[in-house]
Amino acid sequence: MTLKTLRLKSRADRRLKAGHLWIYSNEVDTQTSPLKNFELGELINIESAEGKPLGTGYINPNSLICARLVSRDNKYVLDRSLLVHRIQVALSLRERVFDKPYYRLVFGDSDGLPGLVVDRFGGIVVAQMSTAGMETVKDEIVEALVKVLKPSGILLKNDGTGRQLEKLPEYVEVAYGEVPEKVDLEENGVKFKAPVMKGQKTGWFYDHRLNRERLRHYVSGKRVLDVFSYVGGWGVQCAAFGANQVVCVDASEQAVDLVHENAELNGLADRVESIQGDAFTALKALRDEGEKFDVVIVDPPAFIKKRKDTKAGEQAYRRINELAMRLLEKDGILVSCSCSMHLQKDSLFDALRAGSRHIDRNLQIIEQGHQGPDHPILPAIPETEYIKAIIARVTRV
Amino acid sequence: MTLKTLRLKSRADRRLKAGHLWIYSNEVDTQTSPLKNFELGELINIESAEGKPLGTGYINPNSLICARLVSRDNKYVLDRSLLVHRIQVALSLRERVFDKPYYRLVFGDSDGLPGLVVDRFGGIVVAQMSTAGMETVKDEIVEALVKVLKPSGILLKNDGTGRQLEKLPEYVEVAYGEVPEKVDLEENGVKFKAPVMKGQKTGWFYDHRLNRERLRHYVSGKRVLDVFSYVGGWGVQCAAFGANQVVCVDASEQAVDLVHENAELNGLADRVESIQGDAFTALKALRDEGEKFDVVIVDPPAFIKKRKDTKAGEQAYRRINELAMRLLEKDGILVSCSCSMHLQKDSLFDALRAGSRHIDRNLQIIEQGHQGPDHPILPAIPETEYIKAIIARVTRV
Repeated sequence: MTLKTLRLKSRADRRLKAGHLWIYSNEVDTQTSPLKNFELGELINIESAEGKPLGTGYINPNSLICARLVSRDNKYVLDRSLLVHRIQVALSLRERVFDKPYYRLVFGDSDGLPGLVVDRFGGIVVAQMSTAGMETVKDEIVEALVKVLKPSGILLKNDGTGRQLEKLPEYVEVAYGEVPEKVDLEENGVKFKAPVMKGQKTGWFYDHRLNRERLRHYVSGKRVLDVFSYVGGWGVQCAAFGANQVVCVDASEQAVDLVHENAELNGLADRVESIQGDAFTALKALRDEGEKFDVVIVDPPAFIKKRKDTKAGEQAYRRINELAMRLLEKDGILVSCSCSMHLQKDSLFDALRAGSRHIDRNLQIIEQGHQGPDHPILPAIPETEYIKAIIARVTRV
Repeated sequence: MTLKTLRLKSRADRRLKAGHLWIYSNEVDTQTSPLKNFELGELINIESAEGKPLGTGYINPNSLICARLVSRDNKYVLDRSLLVHRIQVALSLRERVFDKPYYRLVFGDSDGLPGLVVDRFGGIVVAQMSTAGMETVKDEIVEALVKVLKPSGILLKNDGTGRQLEKLPEYVEVAYGEVPEKVDLEENGVKFKAPVMKGQKTGWFYDHRLNRERLRHYVSGKRVLDVFSYVGGWGVQCAAFGANQVVCVDASEQAVDLVHENAELNGLADRVESIQGDAFTALKALRDEGEKFDVVIVDPPAFIKKRKDTKAGEQAYRRINELAMRLLEKDGILVSCSCSMHLQKDSLFDALRAGSRHIDRNLQIIEQGHQGPDHPILPAIPETEYIKAIIARVTRV
């Protein structure tokens, strides 16, 4: 297989050598290797300005991030064989840490497969491709997953908004075997059904697994409020960990229905209630009714989707957390999360500090959580880190 | 009790109102309240430039941080009664999270008691006072601890280097009951003896408890190296979690002796070995001998003690971690810690990134840990956060 070569400008190889995998279009020596000579998603060789081979990857000539490095060894290209190898290396990490086959199996760049995410729900596998390069090897990805995992069904949930950046169509397709509307999974010993066909992202958020697990130590015998509950990942686990009563708040009717189904699945239906509606409105109503909770969990969707939204987003984090703190019993526990990659930890700390001071409370941060081990971080690519979870105690001054 | 009043300069109250507790000497209105009018460690009222009461605290007229806020309500001063209350509020957090009475009970500013640290080892309590204000109420502290905890012995381990800043003498004193040379404790279900009289700090480091607990998922059936092991906190727990063999490295003969005593205590003597010596030298020797480990833990003393040492310290973190990575088996696990408050997380990430690239390895950060819930962080005082722990997998590129 002979690949065309993408040549970088002088010094544009430095970030790659430091561990990064992305090439921006303005880093390409377009005199030597004009972008228009390449096809959408084509596999390529990558070389430095001096002609030194840097490895292989793939290209999208129309995109700001126009190429991604896949192998630092030019012997290997993104084919079925490399996919099988990379998936096996990723699998060995997950099998080392987790007892059961429910996890994110491939986390893009961090697992050496930029543009590919794969979540595993036992025999059902849900994959998402966000780049033209990965879309091009779609069939090889399905073949590699079949070879390594022998699944009963593979769903391509290719409807993410990120695909627009690469001018890829959005679709959801069963690519192998059979895939039900909802799939079974287990997290921290608690059973769930996740809506893989019509839910958010791949249907489930494995990223907060370890953070949810920590709540075991805080909720026994307590009254818990789970804000932005989605299908009950936090709330139903709290009930399973011994909470007396859990109230889940979510705007989606489908999500709220699944909260109850998931509670039922674990024999916890009598301890889990729900409020369908906007979170800010629901919290204000609970405050006006004088309701109090021992533990309040706030795990909102990303309030900061783009860097330019940072200021408004930080304000939203402060507002929702202050509302949550007002609902806490004396010495209550606030669990405050963010999945905004653009929200810095210090900013979330400061939102909590400002919120607590504004209502004359003292806030102690007692635990900090991150995305779980099935969402590894590449230190060279800060974008691979996005989850923050804070457990805080709020006391009278 | 009538207290003298410390008046702040204009706008110097803003940091306190934002949640901070410290007052720097250059923030005092010395025209209205000259520092020379105050005695070492005296209790004081604190007011804003406008004469508005801000609360009570204590003062050290000779120190850069000349005063600390203790109560935002001027009705309360740092007496036995307030100490009892604050210790009870601190205790309620620890009893909520931990099953057994082994933890840091009071973590200074974060528990509303600036300058006081208290570690609990069942019936034995070890306290450290680092400010003249706390030293002044030493007897009241001992009385309050006796009232709340009914301990069998209280040790004042007042030999910390921080005391020099406040011009306090260094001493170690049994202030109540009886205190043995070594005390018993349990962490994550593993038994230890800690040298409270002659060990480092209070004799034990409870701050890494949750991070050590996570190793349960990584060490079973593996060969583990614990660098800067002290008395075996990490290493002996790894053996208890199922490691086949653990090698502990520490420069102190006393620490290495206790590693073996602690292994013996848990019936693990046959699986724990030791090397007494300098860590850098020992790691180079292991490399030269071709030794390999599945998991290497690097938990050094603070390489950055003062901000001016940051650059040299960062280099030391990079060197020791690179040496550790060279000793890893294929797809091995590196556990890299820092207790340097001045080392930023991003700098530790970068030290690992640079080290791994230098030896042509790929490093995935799979977990991030922090100080445990008995070391709360006040978001207004960044100095209350100091522990970082990273679990990373190091693979071939």
